[in-house]
Amino acid sequence: MFYHRKELFRPVNVGTPDARFGQYLLEQFGGATGELTAALQYWVQSFHVEDASIRDMLQDIAIEEFNHLEMVGKLIAQHTSKLDQSDVYAAPLFAMKGIGPHFVDSQGSAWNASYINEGGNVVRDLRANIAAEAGARQTYEALIKRTDDEGTIETLTHLLTREITHAQMFMKALDAMGKLDDPYFGTIEPDETVNVVFNLSQGEDSRGPWNQAPFKYEKDPQPKGGLPEAPVNPDDEHAKVKGAKAA
Amino acid sequence: MFYHRKELFRPVNVGTPDARFGQYLLEQFGGATGELTAALQYWVQSFHVEDASIRDMLQDIAIEEFNHLEMVGKLIAQHTSKLDQSDVYAAPLFAMKGIGPHFVDSQGSAWNASYINEGGNVVRDLRANIAAEAGARQTYEALIKRTDDEGTIETLTHLLTREITHAQMFMKALDAMGKLDDPYFGTIEPDETVNVVFNLSQGEDSRGPWNQAPFKYEKDPQPKGGLPEAPVNPDDEHAKVKGAKAA
Amino acid sequence: MFYHRKELFRPVNVGTPDARFGQYLLEQFGGATGELTAALQYWVQSFHVEDASIRDMLQDIAIEEFNHLEMVGKLIAQHTSKLDQSDVYAAPLFAMKGIGPHFVDSQGSAWNASYINEGGNVVRDLRANIAAEAGARQTYEALIKRTDDEGTIETLTHLLTREITHAQMFMKALDAMGKLDDPYFGTIEPDETVNVVFNLSQGEDSRGPWNQAPFKYEKDPQPKGGLPEAPVNPDDEHAKVKGAKAA
Amino acid sequence: MFYHRKELFRPVNVGTPDARFGQYLLEQFGGATGELTAALQYWVQSFHVEDASIRDMLQDIAIEEFNHLEMVGKLIAQHTSKLDQSDVYAAPLFAMKGIGPHFVDSQGSAWNASYINEGGNVVRDLRANIAAEAGARQTYEALIKRTDDEGTIETLTHLLTREITHAQMFMKALDAMGKLDDPYFGTIEPDETVNVVFNLSQGEDSRGPWNQAPFKYEKDPQPKGGLPEAPVNPDDEHAKVKGAKAA
Amino acid sequence: MFYHRKELFRPVNVGTPDARFGQYLLEQFGGATGELTAALQYWVQSFHVEDASIRDMLQDIAIEEFNHLEMVGKLIAQHTSKLDQSDVYAAPLFAMKGIGPHFVDSQGSAWNASYINEGGNVVRDLRANIAAEAGARQTYEALIKRTDDEGTIETLTHLLTREITHAQMFMKALDAMGKLDDPYFGTIEPDETVNVVFNLSQGEDSRGPWNQAPFKYEKDPQPKGGLPEAPVNPDDEHAKVKGAKAA
Amino acid sequence: MFYHRKELFRPVNVGTPDARFGQYLLEQFGGATGELTAALQYWVQSFHVEDASIRDMLQDIAIEEFNHLEMVGKLIAQHTSKLDQSDVYAAPLFAMKGIGPHFVDSQGSAWNASYINEGGNVVRDLRANIAAEAGARQTYEALIKRTDDEGTIETLTHLLTREITHAQMFMKALDAMGKLDDPYFGTIEPDETVNVVFNLSQGEDSRGPWNQAPFKYEKDPQPKGGLPEAPVNPDDEHAKVKGAKAA
Repeated sequence: MFYHRKELFRPVNVGTPDARFGQYLLEQFGGATGELTAALQYWVQSFHVEDASIRDMLQDIAIEEFNHLEMVGKLIAQHTSKLDQSDVYAAPLFAMKGIGPHFVDSQGSAWNASYINEGGNVVRDLRANIAAEAGARQTYEALIKRTDDEGTIETLTHLLTREITHAQMFMKALDAMGKLDDPYFGTIEPDETVNVVFNLSQGEDSRGPWNQAPFKYEKDPQPKGGLPEAPVNPDDEHAKVKGAKAA
Repeated sequence: MFYHRKELFRPVNVGTPDARFGQYLLEQFGGATGELTAALQYWVQSFHVEDASIRDMLQDIAIEEFNHLEMVGKLIAQHTSKLDQSDVYAAPLFAMKGIGPHFVDSQGSAWNASYINEGGNVVRDLRANIAAEAGARQTYEALIKRTDDEGTIETLTHLLTREITHAQMFMKALDAMGKLDDPYFGTIEPDETVNVVFNLSQGEDSRGPWNQAPFKYEKDPQPKGGLPEAPVNPDDEHAKVKGAKAA
Repeated sequence: MFYHRKELFRPVNVGTPDARFGQYLLEQFGGATGELTAALQYWVQSFHVEDASIRDMLQDIAIEEFNHLEMVGKLIAQHTSKLDQSDVYAAPLFAMKGIGPHFVDSQGSAWNASYINEGGNVVRDLRANIAAEAGARQTYEALIKRTDDEGTIETLTHLLTREITHAQMFMKALDAMGKLDDPYFGTIEPDETVNVVFNLSQGEDSRGPWNQAPFKYEKDPQPKGGLPEAPVNPDDEHAKVKGAKAA
Repeated sequence: MFYHRKELFRPVNVGTPDARFGQYLLEQFGGATGELTAALQYWVQSFHVEDASIRDMLQDIAIEEFNHLEMVGKLIAQHTSKLDQSDVYAAPLFAMKGIGPHFVDSQGSAWNASYINEGGNVVRDLRANIAAEAGARQTYEALIKRTDDEGTIETLTHLLTREITHAQMFMKALDAMGKLDDPYFGTIEPDETVNVVFNLSQGEDSRGPWNQAPFKYEKDPQPKGGLPEAPVNPDDEHAKVKGAKAA
Repeated sequence: MFYHRKELFRPVNVGTPDARFGQYLLEQFGGATGELTAALQYWVQSFHVEDASIRDMLQDIAIEEFNHLEMVGKLIAQHTSKLDQSDVYAAPLFAMKGIGPHFVDSQGSAWNASYINEGGNVVRDLRANIAAEAGARQTYEALIKRTDDEGTIETLTHLLTREITHAQMFMKALDAMGKLDDPYFGTIEPDETVNVVFNLSQGEDSRGPWNQAPFKYEKDPQPKGGLPEAPVNPDDEHAKVKGAKAA
Repeated sequence: MFYHRKELFRPVNVGTPDARFGQYLLEQFGGATGELTAALQYWVQSFHVEDASIRDMLQDIAIEEFNHLEMVGKLIAQHTSKLDQSDVYAAPLFAMKGIGPHFVDSQGSAWNASYINEGGNVVRDLRANIAAEAGARQTYEALIKRTDDEGTIETLTHLLTREITHAQMFMKALDAMGKLDDPYFGTIEPDETVNVVFNLSQGEDSRGPWNQAPFKYEKDPQPKGGLPEAPVNPDDEHAKVKGAKAA
């Protein structure tokens, strides 16, 4: 059950409003790497994860991400509400859709659930979460580099910090399952190619820990699948090519 | 530069075609966790990653994923082409769109680039890739559990195997950067809350490596952000509520 | 600030799990008329609505909708988790994506923020909310008609009930602004056509309160805009039609 | 059956073309609140609404919205066609896609049918239509505030006016069903909570007509649903957490 | 200016309603190859095409496509309205969204304007239209093969017929510009490779009119672009790979 | 089977980087008319086209389009990587998502497979391909007009050239089937209206080769479908209009 208090989790104090920067901030409200993605991803995972302690962790972090979403929303509201009309309208998106946050990214694309990565298995979920945190952190860094407003920077730095904390928590959980550095999970046995690396993009090749022993490096891979069968398409039979022949 | 030979990377031999299973297979052709997502994600990363050895790895794996995409496409083609019309039409998607693969998932939703996770930083990219491999592996397991056709299972097992191999390669690369078990990357210093865990979802709480020391566990977090400022919306002033008062 | 307890707002007790019905239920989890749409729509409005009492109402209802979303999620989880594997796999969506809720609708389309209607003005927002409640109620009725499971029906009936309650609250709020039965709001004066009704679809015409006096009914509207100017397209000049003439 | 004359419903005379403003206008051609949304929403409803007089109203208004769409299209064409190339290319969207209207919004997002709200029941449909009119009116006000061109303002004011007219017509129709101020419709009986209001967002609470008597105000709602059952996920069993315990 | 009469362009008489077939029919109402795509594509082109006779043709056909859309809508309405509830509910999409047409395809995906192909130049537009007609024709053939209902087949055959007519009209128009069999249009001069064909997919090669003289066939194309420059990414510098070397 | 060499198909040498132009270039990387659309469209067609020589052509061109995609990607990388940070950040899209290409268009909309037109029949496919080439050519012309950079112009001119080449190849293939100027294909016989043209948009009518003999021109088409049957909607019965009557 969700509750809400009309106070913020952490302070949000914009000094100098800037509607254009407000538009950038939408990236973390309604964008791919934003807080809505994180909140919904972790929370929806909690419905299918069996382990109670992992469910607890997922829900703790999900609720924190909802609080972050609220903070980003307040940042956007302050960047678009605290100034006179003409300045607000410097950012065309707010001129058309109104002040305050909207569930679109900085380019005006509507948020969609294709941003979410989850399903079936807890190891898969936790790996998806580490990736989500990395994306969110990256965008916060990009945002911090684009503003001089101290209040904004303080809030964004906190939000970036928490992505690191969450990443560490997910790493610890994976490690407790032995799955932080073990690629294998699930019930299907891999086949004999599991240690082979194929050099399919050639030229300027490099060797490193990911394609050296114990990996077996196949320098010039050749097709092993033979000529594929031609399709039989009953809808294609009535128009035939004239004048072609095998080369 | 891309080249192509009209032979398959690995064999694809469907024994008993099943158009309904062909529709499931679309999940790995035009779906979120499918081979197109993987191929394009790794390949597009190679345009902004500075380190030549990582670029080489990304391109080797991207090209392999294109080859996997081709194999999944051939599986779908054989499951819909090798049998008589009425059987093909058991799967309504193929009845409307024609036999063979299409860039939609098993539910008929068009593939879209929101499935891709990349940008800005190589650590972020590699973490996104481990997540992508985990999602792909999970879907291959789901598919293998849904068919009895030996040829199909053999191909799908190979594809699942390679997701494990790629996950391991990405892990090795992250490890070579010291970033497999270190959540921190980038240039922004985190703030003082980096080791705090907030117990925001209460009841049935658990403790584990992700919220025990050295983490500081805040059992009952309270708002520290105060009452947020009310918005000033010039477009709201002309309709006013009557009869409300503070509680 | 959001809080969460690991207890449900209201009971959710599925008697006989039915994965196919679980797939229908997705319509209210990740579908257009679902609880996510309602929760996010009302909550995001609270960031730009000036009147504190309306903001309070929007946030109270938004949080309740998050609780409803959780209940729908639990319904789906019980309909897909409480039974043996083969039964779960009767619904192909769960076979591919795993058990439990996902942010897609009953047809497998990902939730997207285009479902949300909000922005700029509180009257517009409240009207959008009455519409959202009507859509949600309609889908709950459709769902209730499709199941015999008593526990499921009880929960769905509660959720349907609350849509009526919320609709009434939004109506009361609009009424307190004098905007429940007054179409006008905002700052732009309408022109002289505001009471004209155009009979643009002719045949089987009807008259009713919406096109009778005081409305002025124009029975056979004619164009008043003249011939539109032809476009000048600099990219069109290099291929010209031969052999055409005015009729 | 649709007919068309190559004259406009009402005049469209742009004085000073402005390609950037042309881009804003796309919001009402291919955007969420635009004329395509309105035209298609009302028209598609007419296929399932039983009452002949309401069908007549829906079709009259739908056709008018098609005429509005044509007028908005002509506005955009004149704002992008009437001037020299370099000026047209001030708006990047037209530089890439060509002059004239396109079915995208002012941010370049393609129109999609998720903007449409309809289905099942006429009361639901009419409420959705009042919401659609309110959104359209709001965007026209935003547009009018952004231009000084008299011809453009005259056309936009007419279009805004008609949204008010249509809203009034839909209100009259709902009123004729007794459904303008009665939230209830459909065949399912609500449960005993229909008059309860839950104070789920606490702090700065307000009381008004929407949460005063006859509503019963629950000041501090508690969970009544108990601990939810844990999911049973057959795909989760092979990776187990070590070292966690209940708190 | 659009007009409408409440009579159909051509008869629509479903004999035996079949809700499942009604769902297939959505492919031509709200699907990629459907009548909405055609109607909007041709009509939006008319706003930027300079030649008055081509504009006339585009508008004549666009309006006919709106009439076809109405006929498909009536087909769907009859397939879902003419029978008892339980039969209607055989097609889950209508069970959730209500009877009658909706702007989704047969898989439940919302129509979106990415299906439309237009912009900038009349030759491009007309070629896009021939492609649109071919897609529509193909789907009508697929639909006709899936039903035995005579009334349905008669209507669908008419609709298929008209796609052929329109294709012929577009061909005639292109031919009148000399652009039916001349690939060149626009203002940019091609470079010296315009007659070269690259054999980039090797094995089972064929020769035909498209890669024989006067085309110059390059049997084994090699890269001419050299090694691409490495990117310089300021956001990548803080995590470095250890242990890799050029191969 | 796909192979790759780390050399480019043709040179890419940007002289003066311009991040804003880099953003425009995204139109051909992740946009509707871009190289990804072409590559995937032709390649996926090859899975269902029976004729081996057409399959060969489709695959040759598809692989070339992948090489073009790589060249466009390198153009974007050079336009965003070769200059100092503040200049890169002139284009907000790269500021948020990082340097280099991404699978979005110049307006930031994610690429989606609704751009692809294919399925069922080879004639339909080839017509779709001629349309795709025309769209791509048009966008290249728009891009070339927007830049002065010689290296960029040279690469773009090559890419535009190849669209002309491919269009010619597809025309030759259609011609070899007798389908370049014959609208008919497939197995369904058209009805008696195949040569009728309906003058449905009236005023400023023109006559040309597309509506002159042998076409039969119907100057003032009337409805032949009669009054459509009213829908029977079981969900509509509980709210009835009062006070309406037939006009």
